[in-house]
Amino acid sequence: MAEEVLLFGLWASPFSRRVEMALKLKGIQYKYFEEDITNKSPTLLKHNPIHKKIPVLVHNGKPIAESQVILEYIDETWEGHPILPKDPYERANARFWAKFIDEKYLPGIRNALSAEEKQHENAVKEACEVLKHLENEIGEKKYFGGEAIGFVDIVANIIGFWLGITEEISGTKLLTREEFPKLSNWADVFVSSSGIKENLPPRDKLIAYLRTRLGTRSTDASK
Amino acid sequence: MAEEVLLFGLWASPFSRRVEMALKLKGIQYKYFEEDITNKSPTLLKHNPIHKKIPVLVHNGKPIAESQVILEYIDETWEGHPILPKDPYERANARFWAKFIDEKYLPGIRNALSAEEKQHENAVKEACEVLKHLENEIGEKKYFGGEAIGFVDIVANIIGFWLGITEEISGTKLLTREEFPKLSNWADVFVSSSGIKENLPPRDKLIAYLRTRLGTRSTDASK
Repeated sequence: MAEEVLLFGLWASPFSRRVEMALKLKGIQYKYFEEDITNKSPTLLKHNPIHKKIPVLVHNGKPIAESQVILEYIDETWEGHPILPKDPYERANARFWAKFIDEKYLPGIRNALSAEEKQHENAVKEACEVLKHLENEIGEKKYFGGEAIGFVDIVANIIGFWLGITEEISGTKLLTREEFPKLSNWADVFVSSSGIKENLPPRDKLIAYLRTRLGTRSTDASK
Repeated sequence: MAEEVLLFGLWASPFSRRVEMALKLKGIQYKYFEEDITNKSPTLLKHNPIHKKIPVLVHNGKPIAESQVILEYIDETWEGHPILPKDPYERANARFWAKFIDEKYLPGIRNALSAEEKQHENAVKEACEVLKHLENEIGEKKYFGGEAIGFVDIVANIIGFWLGITEEISGTKLLTREEFPKLSNWADVFVSSSGIKENLPPRDKLIAYLRTRLGTRSTDASK
């Protein structure tokens, strides 16, 4: 049977891009469907009736939602570039940091880039605390995954690429080279890595798109 | 080398109990350390410097935090009762629902049991929407895991056991047998299952403990 791999996504969404990155790293052919999140397709709603959000991967008719869940599925289904390490302890460590990024970094960064005055100051401080933990975690490694891109790197695309864009739009710089030299270097290496750089949205187009959405908290694109 | 398995937990915490349930189902011997969350031990802080929360499993000196991450680690490390299914699609499904419970059920239920008047009504409605999804998911199955207790069942201990307790304390009944007959039956079966019933805190003691904490949102016990 010919294998059918469909992805319902949004070009500007880091969560959607996570899935594309993993599929490209594995060398999996897939058919991509761009969703209009202001007018979601009946197919998307059918495939993700609980959250009604992108990304959704449909493999031989079976839908999978939530980007981190999809990444694990991709890794367990196809050979090739490993997404998670083999060792159970290293796997646990990768899952811990991926969870940390979605649960601690994401809400914090939204506050830091949008809150005002006094709240802004506290939010920036908290966001930098979160970045500090990631600065320590990357340490002297090339990638979070070690010598090759892995689970945490893919999940951290929201820092490696999207953060710089949202900093530019908001005028608030968080990931400074002085305070976070290792994380900054990682971001540089990450965005120019094979399998990643071909899967990033065009910078100018993304800035224009996000500017039109500025001030409205994005709740349409799922994790 | 003799294997060393340590668990830092809190007797009243469903997150801590998740780990104990998984260890007991696998038949793993472990040494348990009860934490005082008002005065956390230096060992706990050393082992979970990021979140500073229970539960933490320490296997041969290596610490793992976050209950769902720990459950995956236990399943990948030890043979015996499977926590996650073997099939990648079923695994993705289990991870999806476990994530749903921690991300949608937990915040919703806290609002439903503590918010007041108008907000209370909306919060109850939303919490029941979440329970409805789980009612559909359990369907005709004995457990979320099928014929045997698995990942989602263990994660759902907060519904199977803790919900009834918090309902009793708050005076708000959500999981009614009329509206949620399948989920109610599952809860009955779950709390009387081998490996689970021995790992539940004493009901009266838990009610007394939670009453003293009522009104203060628990942020001390980690997921």
